[in-house]
Amino acid sequence: MSPSAKRRAATDQVSDLIASRLSVYLRCLSLLDQAGVCTVSSSALAHQFHLNAAQIRKDLAYFGEFGVRGVGYSVLELQRHLRTILGLDRRLNVAIIGAGNLGLALADYPGFRQEGFNIVALFDTLPEKVGKRTRGGVPIHHVKELRRVVSRNHITIGVVAVPANAAQLVANNIVSTGIKAILNFSPGTLRVPPGVKLKNADLTVSLESLSFFLARGDAGEEK
Amino acid sequence: MSPSAKRRAATDQVSDLIASRLSVYLRCLSLLDQAGVCTVSSSALAHQFHLNAAQIRKDLAYFGEFGVRGVGYSVLELQRHLRTILGLDRRLNVAIIGAGNLGLALADYPGFRQEGFNIVALFDTLPEKVGKRTRGGVPIHHVKELRRVVSRNHITIGVVAVPANAAQLVANNIVSTGIKAILNFSPGTLRVPPGVKLKNADLTVSLESLSFFLARGDAGEEK
Repeated sequence: MSPSAKRRAATDQVSDLIASRLSVYLRCLSLLDQAGVCTVSSSALAHQFHLNAAQIRKDLAYFGEFGVRGVGYSVLELQRHLRTILGLDRRLNVAIIGAGNLGLALADYPGFRQEGFNIVALFDTLPEKVGKRTRGGVPIHHVKELRRVVSRNHITIGVVAVPANAAQLVANNIVSTGIKAILNFSPGTLRVPPGVKLKNADLTVSLESLSFFLARGDAGEEK
Repeated sequence: MSPSAKRRAATDQVSDLIASRLSVYLRCLSLLDQAGVCTVSSSALAHQFHLNAAQIRKDLAYFGEFGVRGVGYSVLELQRHLRTILGLDRRLNVAIIGAGNLGLALADYPGFRQEGFNIVALFDTLPEKVGKRTRGGVPIHHVKELRRVVSRNHITIGVVAVPANAAQLVANNIVSTGIKAILNFSPGTLRVPPGVKLKNADLTVSLESLSFFLARGDAGEEK
């Protein structure tokens, strides 16, 4: 790996880790807000949600000064700040390629819309799917319409929800529309050109982490 | 957080990170194997799949000595070792609770079976679903059958694929069957007792990481 590629990969990983933690904080704050809590200290936040207080303070300080010493953070204000940092203050339009069970599940996944992601279009090649809508109302287009629909709807994120053998082709297709951010649900490694961010949501990795836990026989020991 | 709880959380996080990396290595080795490659060095592995060679050596050394100096790793042997470490040398039986689009997609997700996970049962409460099978042949039982089916089929992992408002109830239900490993796909935080490992597969977090990337305007800069 070249030094610049290494730097890129490292920056990338750090940015992924920070983004994941900010997402978690945001989720915790929503729960506090729903519970009617107005202010929270980093240690209370950490205690309540099994997080690390020092890490919270460090992560937030990195993006500016939010808290008030001795009072803590305003739940509403911190939520707003985190949404801005995460780019969730403007809604993002998302396209999903593949209208199988996974694509359909993702299209109607309520969490996406709540967090500011509009799933505006699904794509498939099967005649019995094209022209229909999901239960949630997302239209299913033919893949050959991808470029046109992406540009017309200002879609900035593409989701790969096709079988592994079609995934690279679909990724190339998404890249060719000018989309710079891809979420891949198919197992296996995809290649994207520099300037495009690929995030793998490999469902098997999560199961393997549980398998690892069960294999170590930690149940009742570590946790 | 108590010192022991902190230690637990830290161990837990480390174990998750190692498990994720081992999963990635295993996936890369499968690709090399399919391509007819017999031996590979850590640096070749790192180079080809955009990984870190030192990290690979460290991760593998932690579990014993696998490589041969100057030759590298035998692809087949390392695959076998990794599968053992990850507990994938014996097949694990998995139950999914929730037979909506997500549950159905997960039940027939080919990656699971390939990696040694048998999805043996789906559970739901809707009369029109109970008694049916998925396209891949997984039977859908009524949730009230959970304990019986889990014990009869030696199910060790439970997957939560229900809407957020039912998720904690389902998690409690899974825990009550004696299952020690839970994969949660619903948005939001779940509580499980000590001795039970909970892994969140929050689909929104992946999208938020892409949003963060787009918000920073890194496209064409960092990567």
